[in-house]
Amino acid sequence: MSGSEKEGADSIVVSGGYEDDRDFGNVIIYTGQGGRGISGKQEKDQTMKRGNLALVVNEMEGLPVRVIRGADPNNSFAPKNGYRYDGLYRVDSHWYETGKAGFRIWRYRLLKIEDESPLPPAKSIASAVTVLGGGNFAPDRKSMTVQRIVRDTKQAKALKRLYDYTCQVCNIRITTATGPYAEAAHIRPLGKPHEGPDTPDNIICLCPNHHVMFDLGAFSVDDNFTLIGIDGTLTVRKGHIIDLEHLAYHRKHYLNRIPPE
Amino acid sequence: MSGSEKEGADSIVVSGGYEDDRDFGNVIIYTGQGGRGISGKQEKDQTMKRGNLALVVNEMEGLPVRVIRGADPNNSFAPKNGYRYDGLYRVDSHWYETGKAGFRIWRYRLLKIEDESPLPPAKSIASAVTVLGGGNFAPDRKSMTVQRIVRDTKQAKALKRLYDYTCQVCNIRITTATGPYAEAAHIRPLGKPHEGPDTPDNIICLCPNHHVMFDLGAFSVDDNFTLIGIDGTLTVRKGHIIDLEHLAYHRKHYLNRIPPE
Repeated sequence: MSGSEKEGADSIVVSGGYEDDRDFGNVIIYTGQGGRGISGKQEKDQTMKRGNLALVVNEMEGLPVRVIRGADPNNSFAPKNGYRYDGLYRVDSHWYETGKAGFRIWRYRLLKIEDESPLPPAKSIASAVTVLGGGNFAPDRKSMTVQRIVRDTKQAKALKRLYDYTCQVCNIRITTATGPYAEAAHIRPLGKPHEGPDTPDNIICLCPNHHVMFDLGAFSVDDNFTLIGIDGTLTVRKGHIIDLEHLAYHRKHYLNRIPPE
Repeated sequence: MSGSEKEGADSIVVSGGYEDDRDFGNVIIYTGQGGRGISGKQEKDQTMKRGNLALVVNEMEGLPVRVIRGADPNNSFAPKNGYRYDGLYRVDSHWYETGKAGFRIWRYRLLKIEDESPLPPAKSIASAVTVLGGGNFAPDRKSMTVQRIVRDTKQAKALKRLYDYTCQVCNIRITTATGPYAEAAHIRPLGKPHEGPDTPDNIICLCPNHHVMFDLGAFSVDDNFTLIGIDGTLTVRKGHIIDLEHLAYHRKHYLNRIPPE
């Protein structure tokens, strides 16, 4: 991984080095760095520093990261030999898990950016890389990137209506001349690898501010609906049954308390 | 336009009936309905009701709208004859203008959805429509849609840093274990048809809540930085020069005061 904590990660190499990585082509579950001994085995928890923090900066600022795949016989998306530049991905989310060796590892969900014209490959690796796709590397390309995508579902809309678009955390209701606005947050995320369900027991209604904070793990919710990480209690209306297993999943994989300054 | 104020618009027809429509293929600037006399000329202001409001519901809830193009010799994206179903678009934004006839018209920026498998054509028009692309109309398609996309640019990041990620409206600073979070709002939007510049004098730093409200016209900013539509004053730090023409553009095209209840 190359880049910095301030500027974000410039590029990553997916090469089968981490036993916990998973490659679905357009979706990559990428493992953070650190905590491994000389043997290459995980021996300590990974910390949220350096390259691991740089990838979160990419997520929070919408900075794309270049993906380079190295040869790996166990990965059908990898090249047969050497290294290949495979274009830009965005960092969709991050969370932590207990890896196969029993230590905390940080994981990142990377999604291929299909729409935008690519950046050139990272300078440091350009000589080792085959550029795919013909390369429309205009230097004056407008560097507009996606910082955040809010997705919605049918179930989400029904739940927002149940709460009349009021945030379950701060109880504010954003109003506009054309109606109220709120966002539905899936407690256990949809899609690979979390595979949370699109059902009301896995959704809460939040204002955009608390949605961002929830997705980034700045707070979570205890089984009795007390908030963890920030003060307060989740407002739960009659008729809304939240699955406590989904809350446990969020606490286990997302909650990341703000360190004292 | 078919649909409802509550459920959003189901489909629209782009047929050259409105003199103010503009068709760029993947981007359509669509004009609202109403205010036209028997002659077809605009004779009154358009109101934010019925179909015009339905399209805003699509925008705020992330509901796609089916686009049907009718024959129009002046539009190179239109079919030669009859009507054609041209797939799903999302409503990216809405604003108002004084149309060529001197009355207020509502306008909508529609962007083609490239990624997702299409819905079937609207029932009411299916018989008159040629379906393009072979039609992968699985009835069990997961109806996940985009409610909101926040885009970012290099200039945006610099401005967020100048404000240390503090909202210029409410002065809150969202913190997480991995750093602060804010969004950069372009005062005069980028891209067609607004073509606002990506320069600091056209950007303000907002929390997600106030970014949504600003984009939806729930508030705007006066030349002396007094907020209009909500109480308060925009905080402007030393070194940040805001172009008053961009503020005037936002007031003129976006500000849409909340009617008294």
